[in-house]
Amino acid sequence: MTQSINYLDMLQSALTVEGALHSMTDVTGWIEERKADTPFEVTPIPFSRMTNWGFDADTGNLRHISGKFFSIEGIRIQTNWGFVPEWDQPIICQPEVGYLGILCKKINGVLHFLLQAKIEPGNIGGVQLAPTLQATKSNYTRVHGGKKPPYLEYFQSPGNARIRLDVLQSEQGSKYLRKRNRNIIVEIFDDLPVEENFCWMTLGQIGLLLKRDNLVNMDTRTVISCISFGSYEQSALALMKSVLFHDAAHSNDQRHMLLSALDNERHLHSLPELISWITEMKCRFELDVARLPLNHVHGWQRDERRIYHHEGRYFSVIGVSTTIGRREIASWCQPLVQSAQTGIIAFLIKSINGVYHFLVQAKLEAGNLDIIELAPTVQCINDNYRESISEQKPAFLDYVLQVKQEHIWYDAHQSEEGGRFYHEQHRNMIVEVDNSFPEELPPTYVWMTLNQIKSFIHFNNYFNMEARSLIAAIGLW
Amino acid sequence: MTQSINYLDMLQSALTVEGALHSMTDVTGWIEERKADTPFEVTPIPFSRMTNWGFDADTGNLRHISGKFFSIEGIRIQTNWGFVPEWDQPIICQPEVGYLGILCKKINGVLHFLLQAKIEPGNIGGVQLAPTLQATKSNYTRVHGGKKPPYLEYFQSPGNARIRLDVLQSEQGSKYLRKRNRNIIVEIFDDLPVEENFCWMTLGQIGLLLKRDNLVNMDTRTVISCISFGSYEQSALALMKSVLFHDAAHSNDQRHMLLSALDNERHLHSLPELISWITEMKCRFELDVARLPLNHVHGWQRDERRIYHHEGRYFSVIGVSTTIGRREIASWCQPLVQSAQTGIIAFLIKSINGVYHFLVQAKLEAGNLDIIELAPTVQCINDNYRESISEQKPAFLDYVLQVKQEHIWYDAHQSEEGGRFYHEQHRNMIVEVDNSFPEELPPTYVWMTLNQIKSFIHFNNYFNMEARSLIAAIGLW
Repeated sequence: MTQSINYLDMLQSALTVEGALHSMTDVTGWIEERKADTPFEVTPIPFSRMTNWGFDADTGNLRHISGKFFSIEGIRIQTNWGFVPEWDQPIICQPEVGYLGILCKKINGVLHFLLQAKIEPGNIGGVQLAPTLQATKSNYTRVHGGKKPPYLEYFQSPGNARIRLDVLQSEQGSKYLRKRNRNIIVEIFDDLPVEENFCWMTLGQIGLLLKRDNLVNMDTRTVISCISFGSYEQSALALMKSVLFHDAAHSNDQRHMLLSALDNERHLHSLPELISWITEMKCRFELDVARLPLNHVHGWQRDERRIYHHEGRYFSVIGVSTTIGRREIASWCQPLVQSAQTGIIAFLIKSINGVYHFLVQAKLEAGNLDIIELAPTVQCINDNYRESISEQKPAFLDYVLQVKQEHIWYDAHQSEEGGRFYHEQHRNMIVEVDNSFPEELPPTYVWMTLNQIKSFIHFNNYFNMEARSLIAAIGLW
Repeated sequence: MTQSINYLDMLQSALTVEGALHSMTDVTGWIEERKADTPFEVTPIPFSRMTNWGFDADTGNLRHISGKFFSIEGIRIQTNWGFVPEWDQPIICQPEVGYLGILCKKINGVLHFLLQAKIEPGNIGGVQLAPTLQATKSNYTRVHGGKKPPYLEYFQSPGNARIRLDVLQSEQGSKYLRKRNRNIIVEIFDDLPVEENFCWMTLGQIGLLLKRDNLVNMDTRTVISCISFGSYEQSALALMKSVLFHDAAHSNDQRHMLLSALDNERHLHSLPELISWITEMKCRFELDVARLPLNHVHGWQRDERRIYHHEGRYFSVIGVSTTIGRREIASWCQPLVQSAQTGIIAFLIKSINGVYHFLVQAKLEAGNLDIIELAPTVQCINDNYRESISEQKPAFLDYVLQVKQEHIWYDAHQSEEGGRFYHEQHRNMIVEVDNSFPEELPPTYVWMTLNQIKSFIHFNNYFNMEARSLIAAIGLW
């Protein structure tokens, strides 16, 4: 690879907070102003009042009259992974691939990223920071009129620009049937008009905003997670040495994490060994998914306002009416998925050979394209384990919940995509384990370095959305 | 990656023909002996006489009474790729992942690979060289009794051994529904008993055998194609310089190709650029596959002996009775797929920046797991183009068929898997283009180096079976 310079400027942006185009005070001020200036109202309504949406008479599937956007249908799963060999569930079907695109540009020599203050009906706290472009095919082909999304043309036909990354990544496999989005970053070289809802910021600044609850949206997090910082050789030792070891703004922990992001030698397992482990997981586990009419989904019921599990568990589907904006007002109805519980996602990390390793899980979810994807150490909704007998408790959950404060590297609540999920958030945690942590792991777990994780993320459908959300939050700043 | 030594010994084996455990004369003598010593008889029979196989009364699907092995079912395809937007076809359904495993061992300091002389009912010429272990789950779990396949235990629980590669790779997407096999190479360190049908040989020797028609079977070819030789830094310049440039046994062409296998810098496009192109292909093209009862497959008919296309095109499904062996005799019946025509697969190659690049095609086939896979420049059956209007002729086919002899690097007929395909072979070609070749390519084609191709093959479901077959044939020897 002859791309040292690419990795170097990504790293530099990740290490820049001061000296950016806008100070952190300006950035947070702009966010507060956008929040104040964008009134919105989201009201749960009966399905019968959802304009343009309805249940298909034959199948009971919930769909838009255009047949576009998305639909709620049913699936029946059979698998030998986990403790439940067979179940039915509703699932979001959205065969379109959408854009999650971020523009970046060198400003004063440092890469800045153009984020958008955006409201989605399911958002907690209203405005969140979205990618420059967040558009499904139905959106950008304007199935039902509406304006062209701003900056669409930079992604559809980049002119004086360079594609910095461009890869398909999965959405949540427990809620979507094989849904993917195109995660893309385009570097532009010309000036562009910055619209009111948009703001340039560095990766370091985005990293700081990720320490806050529910501010950087899921779509931004997945795109950010795909950014690689290369390896030692590629990322200019000079920069590292000067910034990293002589700059008092960076703690030892941060230096250690940067080392883990760049070191591609001191791993516990080689990449071929990890690929062999993934192969073994995909051979050992079977996932058979049959599509069903929503009418035929066993264990789920529907009333005027909800499609829900008969024991009230997992999630339900509701309808909402949304009105957003002050000068230009947009109103529409749509279904949203509402989780029964808050969830938790956590990576355990451990220093091995002086480099942080992450404990990665091979996890099967109903909507996965290829049986298993790589997931955080712990990924569950609270409900899953409350009533579980102890053998069925998710591995390492107790460890995460009982860990001492000083071992917690990262702890914030982050939202799922507000265009599909109603007020859904997960507690996102990164927790360091010490040497007393057991050497022996269950067969579906393996240690990887951050550099190895990034290598897999370059190729599509390796790491799941929840894992990528956590990887995005790893601050080098 | 800290694996220089791994790549180095693979390279050394690829460059070794003389000085191996057995001379080429011994190896070919052993093959002739195995052929002479293994009588076999394969007779097409009516479906009604196929013991243990039958058509399901409701669906018309052709299946084994155990429900295991494989079945012939139907699919309906809708796509925006190519010239045919919708069609039905029969397809082989075999949800099991099988082993294609080769044992290797250092003998006199050089890695040797244990191949098996094996007959499959569809083989042209009887015995072909198969991997050490070639077994579906139904085989090795012994659904219907039978012996344990030799050497199975080395793959299921390698003891004093090392997994050298282990990755899922696709089977032919035009005939199988999302079928994959586990391509695995295990290096052993202890001695093992070599059974009569097995023989140790180097990669260089296998390379020479690949220049003959229909001798090295498809399963061996796919495993061999996954072997990487690393890059310059990893593969010890010293070895290269001594063997490559001072050994008169190697021609300039071979040196040039070795350069292409190892050079990971002088590429036309970077790896992120290639990933972006793959992303674009997966976003642009849609593949919708609905499963159908074989009864409902439009355009196909069934008589007592064949399931066939109503115009006699593409392929048909027949039944055969097989008897193999002299001392131990095995007899069974099974369906086989018979192609209507011989096909052609070809890579165009071109020296760019002093390194060979391969013209790779993004090709959609009905059974693909993820829309498109990367295919040879030309991949078609003769029938496809004979009656085609010229716009629908496969791109570059005329070029390949009319090229002068001196530009042909490789030209041999190679068989498809004889366990499923009846006397099916493709003409396999590698053809060098000169500077008059057009710069502008159709959007579904891109140039890649051999090193880049190997990088993608490390991860599952990038390169299709036909491409891997050709890659296996690239001789470094």
